[in-house]
Amino acid sequence: MNYRMLIYVMGRILRAEGLLMIFPFIISLIYGEKSGFAFAVVIISLLLISTIISTNPPEKSFMRPKDGFAAVGIAWLLLSFFGCLPFYISGQIPSFIDAFFETVSGFTTTGSSILTEVESLDRGMTFWRCFTNWTGGMGILVFVLAILPQSDMKSTRMMHIMRAESPGPTVGKLVPKLKQTATIMYAIYIVLTTIEFILLLIGGMPFFDSLCHSLANAGTGGFSIKNAGIAAYGSPYIEIVITVFMILFSVNFNVFYLIITGNILRAIKSEELWAFLGIIAFSIATITINVSSMYESIGDAIRDSAFSVATVMSTTGFATADFDKWPTFSQVILVILMFVGGCAGSTCGGLKISRIILLIKNGLREIKYIFQPNSVYSIRFEGKPVEKDTVRSVTNYFFIYIALFTIFLVAISAIESVDIITAFTSVAATFNNIGPGLSIVGPTGNFSSFSPLSKFIFSLAMLTGRLELFPIITLFAPSTWKKV
Amino acid sequence: MNYRMLIYVMGRILRAEGLLMIFPFIISLIYGEKSGFAFAVVIISLLLISTIISTNPPEKSFMRPKDGFAAVGIAWLLLSFFGCLPFYISGQIPSFIDAFFETVSGFTTTGSSILTEVESLDRGMTFWRCFTNWTGGMGILVFVLAILPQSDMKSTRMMHIMRAESPGPTVGKLVPKLKQTATIMYAIYIVLTTIEFILLLIGGMPFFDSLCHSLANAGTGGFSIKNAGIAAYGSPYIEIVITVFMILFSVNFNVFYLIITGNILRAIKSEELWAFLGIIAFSIATITINVSSMYESIGDAIRDSAFSVATVMSTTGFATADFDKWPTFSQVILVILMFVGGCAGSTCGGLKISRIILLIKNGLREIKYIFQPNSVYSIRFEGKPVEKDTVRSVTNYFFIYIALFTIFLVAISAIESVDIITAFTSVAATFNNIGPGLSIVGPTGNFSSFSPLSKFIFSLAMLTGRLELFPIITLFAPSTWKKV
Repeated sequence: MNYRMLIYVMGRILRAEGLLMIFPFIISLIYGEKSGFAFAVVIISLLLISTIISTNPPEKSFMRPKDGFAAVGIAWLLLSFFGCLPFYISGQIPSFIDAFFETVSGFTTTGSSILTEVESLDRGMTFWRCFTNWTGGMGILVFVLAILPQSDMKSTRMMHIMRAESPGPTVGKLVPKLKQTATIMYAIYIVLTTIEFILLLIGGMPFFDSLCHSLANAGTGGFSIKNAGIAAYGSPYIEIVITVFMILFSVNFNVFYLIITGNILRAIKSEELWAFLGIIAFSIATITINVSSMYESIGDAIRDSAFSVATVMSTTGFATADFDKWPTFSQVILVILMFVGGCAGSTCGGLKISRIILLIKNGLREIKYIFQPNSVYSIRFEGKPVEKDTVRSVTNYFFIYIALFTIFLVAISAIESVDIITAFTSVAATFNNIGPGLSIVGPTGNFSSFSPLSKFIFSLAMLTGRLELFPIITLFAPSTWKKV
Repeated sequence: MNYRMLIYVMGRILRAEGLLMIFPFIISLIYGEKSGFAFAVVIISLLLISTIISTNPPEKSFMRPKDGFAAVGIAWLLLSFFGCLPFYISGQIPSFIDAFFETVSGFTTTGSSILTEVESLDRGMTFWRCFTNWTGGMGILVFVLAILPQSDMKSTRMMHIMRAESPGPTVGKLVPKLKQTATIMYAIYIVLTTIEFILLLIGGMPFFDSLCHSLANAGTGGFSIKNAGIAAYGSPYIEIVITVFMILFSVNFNVFYLIITGNILRAIKSEELWAFLGIIAFSIATITINVSSMYESIGDAIRDSAFSVATVMSTTGFATADFDKWPTFSQVILVILMFVGGCAGSTCGGLKISRIILLIKNGLREIKYIFQPNSVYSIRFEGKPVEKDTVRSVTNYFFIYIALFTIFLVAISAIESVDIITAFTSVAATFNNIGPGLSIVGPTGNFSSFSPLSKFIFSLAMLTGRLELFPIITLFAPSTWKKV
């Protein structure tokens, strides 16, 4: 590890967090909330720390790929640590580990909560909570990249970092320059969020609520500002808007880029998009049939099914229906969707559709190969042949994913005396960045009753899932910490 | 498909089944049971059919690898069909699908049962039930191979068949000649079964019970002839003997071969053996601690934990303790062990230890590779470098395994209105050839309450798991059925 460089980069990232925190501080001022002083304290501390450790870039800026991954992991831990301080210092979340869990859940866009009374939070805090969803969704480091001066970081190093933070098996550079790509991504993100905000306003949702929910939705985070979640508004229109935007924010942002640059044909040819929409349609249809007897009208059944499928598959975690009470078939489908997740290059968690497609294609190839060993079979994806290395890394990713899930599951069930469904789905919901699971952590439940150790393990699971494993794994490798 | 050759081979296999059925027929005669006539009817039918379709070997004996796999799948379906007829014809199991499920469960060494009153079966039927465990364990086709005249089948074709039926990622030929390998395997199998039989007799288990239980144990099948399972004997000695033999029959038979040929050093150097024993020791230790408060003495806790770990990991399925009542941690460990299974080259189901070792080693290599892309890393297993093709096929096997498990899970939860734990563990218990799961299918429960369609799907799951996926998958490929 090049420690000087690490410290320098961390300083830049913490400064960005300090700047982002000005928004909730302003909200606190507007509403005249005392808790706002906590933001002031943290903002000043962050800017001071940043100034001290990041004034002069070190001469040797070389970082190994491993160090790039580790830097991302450390950055997210630091961001979560400083990000939780306003909750803790103000006393709005009196337990430190609760505040930390909530902030990790925010940045990783998980949306699992330890709060039993969301509505008792101050406005500034409520906004910050939803704002972590938004910044974490697109990637905080990508944000740093977008606002940094071009010359400040070398492209190859930033590529390592962006690759480590971006969801999906490959990072698509939209345009040759990375900084430009990051800027375009953020522009699309802001425009879509704004459209949703306006649509929610039109539906009669109050200004502040619309703001917070569109931020939480865009990041597919799912922090709601109501105890009853989106159901609190009792508006089919609002539920439909949110369902549509949960699906939109699960789409690969490349598709939107292609559309705005006029390549509509290429955009709608996306294999991943169609597979994603196909899985959604299949799941909504089968779940609607499965739950129809619980509803008075088929329309209500469709709306709740669609919302639940969208919330789980997009890994958002907003809730309208309590699917913990649904029949086994619906729950099985939802739990499977938790692991599937949305498209690569979106703000979703889970394995991602493109990986699932590659895994299935490769599985079918393996079957062909077993039956006719002397033939050669190739895999194509999005119209192009897939490189051997990509296939290898995706199949290995799948095993490592399941193995880490198993380790987290064993850890939680060793610490907690909860039922097996709670143990399984609480880990699935955090590791895949969904939010709610089943039983104790179902849509009407929360994570408040877990022990501090479990909350820390869940935080680790959320970070591991959000950063696609390696940035957190590398923190446990002793060789990462050797001075280079 | 070369249909003439397929029919010829099936005739030979059905003849072998007819010959094997003479044993339960003799038992029926000894006890003077009327139901014995059913065996006579089926034996005569099998020998007649065999004579009609297998008199002259076809001139063209060529079979594609695909056809070899398909032949194994068809053979096991036919064996199960004819194997269930004695139960059905005699009226001892009045429903055909129940009789079929029970026989598939027997041959695949699963041990899941639809019987609510095992003890009301006639002796001949009880013996046949346990005998299916024994013959299915080592492989019926391997048995056919062992008794066939050398010249009857070409070695390469038999290799396809044996590879398809044998558990594990690679087939170890102990000696150059395949027929000899099969004979040695069966000799070890018979000797070990006999030793267990004698040890159970010494422990005071009645002659017939000892015979049936040692057969069911050797195949890691787990059909007990008592409603209360092994707990019925109330003998710690018997439980310990069975625990030890469940573990012994989960060991790769190559290890025994090495020991009897004097290569003890090579035998005890087996990586797979130590990994297997290590997982068993870890699981017993942690589960003992977890359940200790439920027992009066630590000795009882250890004995029940050891028995349960051995029964699940060896995929046998005998029961003493009702682990459905155990705490979540113990259940999580047991469910994970269901998927792990025993060693390759044993009579176990599950993924097999050697695959797990290769997956973990490959996962670690992937992590190294991600962190230092320019280096080359190789994997060694059992002291030898592992071929690329083996790694590829094992990682793909893992995905296909999980994918098929998921498909079976969705199917069962769509058909049955059972709780999610029953749905998950009933599929896990059948697909991995264990026997019992949790909840409705727990150690004190059974599969009788499922619908006929579910019983058929479970049968398919058991066959798919036992034959390591491809022989059943190939039956669904239209190209298999094209005339060649």
